[in-house]
Amino acid sequence: MFSHQISGDIYLKLLELNDATDLFAITDGSRNYLREWLPWVDGTKSVDDSKSFIEMTMNQYASNNGFQAGIWFCNQLVGCIGYHAMDWANRKTSIGYWLAEDFQGHGIMTQATQALVDIAITEYKLNRVEISAAVENQKSRAIPERLGFEEEGCLHQNEWLYDHFVDHILYATLQSKWKR
Amino acid sequence: MFSHQISGDIYLKLLELNDATDLFAITDGSRNYLREWLPWVDGTKSVDDSKSFIEMTMNQYASNNGFQAGIWFCNQLVGCIGYHAMDWANRKTSIGYWLAEDFQGHGIMTQATQALVDIAITEYKLNRVEISAAVENQKSRAIPERLGFEEEGCLHQNEWLYDHFVDHILYATLQSKWKR
Amino acid sequence: MFSHQISGDIYLKLLELNDATDLFAITDGSRNYLREWLPWVDGTKSVDDSKSFIEMTMNQYASNNGFQAGIWFCNQLVGCIGYHAMDWANRKTSIGYWLAEDFQGHGIMTQATQALVDIAITEYKLNRVEISAAVENQKSRAIPERLGFEEEGCLHQNEWLYDHFVDHILYATLQSKWKR
Amino acid sequence: MFSHQISGDIYLKLLELNDATDLFAITDGSRNYLREWLPWVDGTKSVDDSKSFIEMTMNQYASNNGFQAGIWFCNQLVGCIGYHAMDWANRKTSIGYWLAEDFQGHGIMTQATQALVDIAITEYKLNRVEISAAVENQKSRAIPERLGFEEEGCLHQNEWLYDHFVDHILYATLQSKWKR
Amino acid sequence: MFSHQISGDIYLKLLELNDATDLFAITDGSRNYLREWLPWVDGTKSVDDSKSFIEMTMNQYASNNGFQAGIWFCNQLVGCIGYHAMDWANRKTSIGYWLAEDFQGHGIMTQATQALVDIAITEYKLNRVEISAAVENQKSRAIPERLGFEEEGCLHQNEWLYDHFVDHILYATLQSKWKR
Amino acid sequence: MFSHQISGDIYLKLLELNDATDLFAITDGSRNYLREWLPWVDGTKSVDDSKSFIEMTMNQYASNNGFQAGIWFCNQLVGCIGYHAMDWANRKTSIGYWLAEDFQGHGIMTQATQALVDIAITEYKLNRVEISAAVENQKSRAIPERLGFEEEGCLHQNEWLYDHFVDHILYATLQSKWKR
Repeated sequence: MFSHQISGDIYLKLLELNDATDLFAITDGSRNYLREWLPWVDGTKSVDDSKSFIEMTMNQYASNNGFQAGIWFCNQLVGCIGYHAMDWANRKTSIGYWLAEDFQGHGIMTQATQALVDIAITEYKLNRVEISAAVENQKSRAIPERLGFEEEGCLHQNEWLYDHFVDHILYATLQSKWKR
Repeated sequence: MFSHQISGDIYLKLLELNDATDLFAITDGSRNYLREWLPWVDGTKSVDDSKSFIEMTMNQYASNNGFQAGIWFCNQLVGCIGYHAMDWANRKTSIGYWLAEDFQGHGIMTQATQALVDIAITEYKLNRVEISAAVENQKSRAIPERLGFEEEGCLHQNEWLYDHFVDHILYATLQSKWKR
Repeated sequence: MFSHQISGDIYLKLLELNDATDLFAITDGSRNYLREWLPWVDGTKSVDDSKSFIEMTMNQYASNNGFQAGIWFCNQLVGCIGYHAMDWANRKTSIGYWLAEDFQGHGIMTQATQALVDIAITEYKLNRVEISAAVENQKSRAIPERLGFEEEGCLHQNEWLYDHFVDHILYATLQSKWKR
Repeated sequence: MFSHQISGDIYLKLLELNDATDLFAITDGSRNYLREWLPWVDGTKSVDDSKSFIEMTMNQYASNNGFQAGIWFCNQLVGCIGYHAMDWANRKTSIGYWLAEDFQGHGIMTQATQALVDIAITEYKLNRVEISAAVENQKSRAIPERLGFEEEGCLHQNEWLYDHFVDHILYATLQSKWKR
Repeated sequence: MFSHQISGDIYLKLLELNDATDLFAITDGSRNYLREWLPWVDGTKSVDDSKSFIEMTMNQYASNNGFQAGIWFCNQLVGCIGYHAMDWANRKTSIGYWLAEDFQGHGIMTQATQALVDIAITEYKLNRVEISAAVENQKSRAIPERLGFEEEGCLHQNEWLYDHFVDHILYATLQSKWKR
Repeated sequence: MFSHQISGDIYLKLLELNDATDLFAITDGSRNYLREWLPWVDGTKSVDDSKSFIEMTMNQYASNNGFQAGIWFCNQLVGCIGYHAMDWANRKTSIGYWLAEDFQGHGIMTQATQALVDIAITEYKLNRVEISAAVENQKSRAIPERLGFEEEGCLHQNEWLYDHFVDHILYATLQSKWKR
């Protein structure tokens, strides 16, 4: 319905309740792959859990606090990308994303992330966009690196993943450095 | 950002807070024209009123109760269209719309309305879509008539417009009758 | 406690939590009869469901959005009548009602409905009161017809009843036409 | 609309928003008289204050926490009576009341209070009903005394009245002692 | 963490969620002893019930409506004391407390109660502090008597304890009578 | 009332509404000094603004999301320290603080911060505590450096201060590295 075209094959769409079945299916289908770096996978046990997540994102959107979008590739839901929250006072935000296992390697996430940085800077007039990724999550780190984000530091034991903490690399770009 | 393309020139977009200035401008610019048939025009006195309206529509969307979209024509906000509410139990809704004075006559609203009926029936799986228009509001009545809605009745003194009641014609279409 | 006397035998009373047992009993006792035209009967499985309904009606009343009243006949709760919602901007409302099977044929509902139209017009200063009934629900249609409501149209597939849609006839009366 | 008849001339009615004008008028008309014993009189400066009070009482009613009723005498609003709150766990409540200056001496408040004790004990199945009155407020103290309440104690400096504290006599009756 | 030292061995601390386990343990360990005079003991069946109670008290505190504190004796949680609610308009409150069976007889509760009266009068600037206790609960009555509260009356059947009502003695002290 | 003693002269206390006057006074008295590094100073124009801040912190505390404490030195309110929020899932938090101009140089803030790290790690069982400070705010940076926090990175244009962005140094300590 409401979508943001990224390239011929790829578009983003605000997640809606009737996406819950598809969202759960790709989560469930990539479970082992996704849980290596995502803390919420084990807690997503049924379509109702995906529904609750979507309701939460709809409230985030309605509170003017950013949004979560589904990523469609060849008319199939293949992952998610969104802003964690909007810090309007300091005009900054951070971006999170994940992609189902079978759709890696097409440059989908790099393009989707580029789109979200564009939207943050040109539409929401933000000044700073952060991305953080686990030190050993090479695929995730490649995105901000490819997009010219600057590495700002290493945050020790920044995230709990089921049974251990992981360190994060913090990347950021600024309005003044972002070229389309 | 998130938009629904209707034709080369026309797209719909969920209203967001940064649309408030434009929304107020076209309301204010068509004030005399719009107030003939719309009850909320006199109460829209500043950008803050448009902001409040947009916040209300964001909450409507987040409550899974339909949405209000802006209509963009040649990259300019020219009007609004939306669902008043979703009656999920009976799988029906009704559509309301308005267009600034200068953009009448391009078939914009007919196409936008067709899009919302399509979305209601194919995406939201609704069964019945209503449109009601004041008996003497020929421009508004032409939309459902052009789209093949059936006239179901005349509702006497159905709406209060500043200083008088107006009668409404009720139109509806059903999933079984709607052909794309 | 707080009641509205209609005739020697009949009075209305705002539903309160201690009416839940009686309300469930008459629903349960007329289950087959009521479910032919009422969509909520199958979902009313215990006194707690009736309690939830009453809590909802108490909130409706507290929000100045109309009320639901029980109908007492010979000091026995025999049915319900109420306003679906108040449209203060357009000064209109609509009325819904049901009566347990054993108490049909005493003119109870015609008198109760007349009372609610009176209250809507004289106390709440409304201008328009609607009643809609399924085309084949003769008993329900007889009420507005007996009270001089005008038939305004036929709404196709307007309500979902468990496994099929039903068409509704829409009736209305106006302040200017209503004579006590 | 919904009323509780007490005698030929007197009835109680749940306060509704359209009673605000009358309620403010009798408050304003008895201002000097009422403020001797009532702490809220000086804060009631306009119809909007009476409206806020009525909204609060509608929410009290909807929360199953008792109600505030207007007292009508010869079809005129002359005062208020209500339960401060319901203590369902201990099955007790307390009653408060006031009457405009011109309607003193007709036994109105004794009858209204008797009605509220009856409702508390027979309809709400409460066990204990309290009334407290300032030691020197002879008119108010006469009500529970006339109705056979027992004096249980004297509460020192129990209430703040604009510029001084007043002592209260606490009266109570029990279900076992209350005879209709 | 945040505590109020009363004597070398005794301090009060606002209850926090990580106190739930200890709070449930002492409740469970004194169950028979406590239930003689406390109505909530039978309803406290698990640590989650103690957690719910603590959440309630944290909201009470955040609403500026008084607080509930745990009583620590020799670094062990041994009971609770708190204000039921704050009546800011009339500058009064009432105090409730309980102590686990094994810690009776050390003067703990007298000191804790004295502290809460001090806080009420000197920090919250209240004028009147009440304590009520069941007529036959000698241990509880001894506290206000020892602290010089005045006995103001006997409230019949004031509290429901599982299967019977109990009468209460009401005690109070005033700012003008309270000497440190 | 409820306090956390840090040394003979210094204690922390949860901020309460009756601290608003003092809190505003020290803000107002250090206005020029504080606004160099704190974004909220210009928006704090009256005691009511300090009251609103305190209400916000009481709700933070009641939501189990950390707390803001006042810092008392020689029985005088001299500054604030608190947790921005609690990230229970990842067991981490961050600390913010400020001190009125006249009380710099006594080691007050180092001791207060040490106390909050202690509480975070030993009472709240958190694993990671962050402090971030503007690159050129030497006084603020000295605190985590003195306490052995590790410098993890530099966040460009991380905060908006009235008319310009400032870069921040991010410091952190971990449970495993924190020695009492």
